[in-house]
Amino acid sequence: MDATDFNMFDAALAARARTVETTLRRLLDDRPLDGEVERPAHLMDAIRHGVFNGGKRLRPFLVMEAAALFAPVDEAVARVAAAVECIHCYSLIHDDLPAMDDDDTRRGKPTVHKAFDEATAILAGDALLTFAFDLLASPNTVLSPVPRTELVLVLARASGLGGMVGGQALDLKAERAVPDEAGIVRLQAMKTGALIRAACEMGAIAGGAKPDERARLAEFGSAIGLAFQLADDLLDLTATPEKMGKATAKDDAAGKATLVRLHGADWTRRQLAHLTAEAANLLAPFGEKGAVLREAARFVSERDR
Amino acid sequence: MDATDFNMFDAALAARARTVETTLRRLLDDRPLDGEVERPAHLMDAIRHGVFNGGKRLRPFLVMEAAALFAPVDEAVARVAAAVECIHCYSLIHDDLPAMDDDDTRRGKPTVHKAFDEATAILAGDALLTFAFDLLASPNTVLSPVPRTELVLVLARASGLGGMVGGQALDLKAERAVPDEAGIVRLQAMKTGALIRAACEMGAIAGGAKPDERARLAEFGSAIGLAFQLADDLLDLTATPEKMGKATAKDDAAGKATLVRLHGADWTRRQLAHLTAEAANLLAPFGEKGAVLREAARFVSERDR
Repeated sequence: MDATDFNMFDAALAARARTVETTLRRLLDDRPLDGEVERPAHLMDAIRHGVFNGGKRLRPFLVMEAAALFAPVDEAVARVAAAVECIHCYSLIHDDLPAMDDDDTRRGKPTVHKAFDEATAILAGDALLTFAFDLLASPNTVLSPVPRTELVLVLARASGLGGMVGGQALDLKAERAVPDEAGIVRLQAMKTGALIRAACEMGAIAGGAKPDERARLAEFGSAIGLAFQLADDLLDLTATPEKMGKATAKDDAAGKATLVRLHGADWTRRQLAHLTAEAANLLAPFGEKGAVLREAARFVSERDR
Repeated sequence: MDATDFNMFDAALAARARTVETTLRRLLDDRPLDGEVERPAHLMDAIRHGVFNGGKRLRPFLVMEAAALFAPVDEAVARVAAAVECIHCYSLIHDDLPAMDDDDTRRGKPTVHKAFDEATAILAGDALLTFAFDLLASPNTVLSPVPRTELVLVLARASGLGGMVGGQALDLKAERAVPDEAGIVRLQAMKTGALIRAACEMGAIAGGAKPDERARLAEFGSAIGLAFQLADDLLDLTATPEKMGKATAKDDAAGKATLVRLHGADWTRRQLAHLTAEAANLLAPFGEKGAVLREAARFVSERDR
């Protein structure tokens, strides 16, 4: 991929990020919705601190691009994308807590528990997690009840005890007892892979994909979810702190088990090339429509920050 | 109410508790569901520690009794009841954390973060919260997609930033700046009232109630939610630690603002009698079918532990 492709992809990613951020700004303001009593200003400030954090919005991007294969990206799709981002942002807020990764900063800003306090950070995370499901079930997300219910189920299963949260629990345990290769693969499929896979599958559902197309997008999501983690582990090993804007070699210093540590950088780069090709194959039936998602697979594999 | 009524009510409450606990035992075992990768044993142990805690299961009871006004209590209703209890149990696990209420024991057993660790308690809460929505959206909860979506929305709105979690955030703030009477009422309607109201409304939805019946059950839930909190505050003021199995006068010693502190015990008892009567009025259209819920309103107001 040359620099022009990268620039075009960066522009597409930024445009989708603006859409989801506009949606989230509107949804996460201080005015209560029907059935809500009041939105405490302090809690909403903490939530917004955690959500408007300069993130790339990769998961909402995947929701919108997957949906775009099947239908125009409308308000309903943007709301589904926002729901996935609420889950991602809550997980960052809780992961940063002292009892978890104990991080004081994220992207150069104080983490939520530093800017506010621990109790508020716990509640902000709980509120965002809950709000994701509010968004999917709301009649303002104009989709018929069948896909709305499917979206709730896919998101809950990907982010709950058998998905993201379960992966986080396995990760805590892995600091004490190093898992074997199959264990690492499972852990990563749960901790980071499941939500990326769900983002692609949910985009397909929101766009009205047929069951086989939906399964294809889920598989595509699995491939880039795995690539995302491999690229992340590779960066942790090879990038400089200046480039990343955060401490690197942190996992390596902690002796954390990753596939990159097991097999080395060259093996990892071959795996990433293989996953990019697999992702492209899965998109083949969509022809030119699949171009942006093909670039997304490359972006995930080849990013240097 | 005489002793016989109380005993009959206790038996009805215990029978519903057995139903929801059987359902939860089956749902929260170690076997992953479709779409889950793996259920980490350690996390599941922590979740079960938090869920099977000897609670009275009042909220699932309300779900099942509200549903019973309209239809037989079947597996779907039991699963809806279980979802509400997952939310209640997650909120207890997170409330007990050192950064929140910092409680070491609950009902004489170590709290989840004491029996396991803080990180695991945070994740167990997150997982239970997420699982509640999994349960409502699952096709195994045999209800058509419209009520399934409505159930997700009612539960999310009652337990999220404009409901239970928001009430918890207001409560933390109230320790620094004492709210006025309207503020106390709002705080309590959110912190404890909203989920009790939702339990009654969700039972009505699961039982197939018409919109006006559903609204009536929600109002009934509001009345007993308020009574629940008043009775709790009254007990904190008047009961002995031996009777309660936990420290009492804790809120009073902390100078916490409650309506009982503002208006006194006699006013509170009059309010409780008024709320019990209001609850009974709301149930009048259901005739003899409403007897158990009428007793529930009395139980909530008159309980001494």
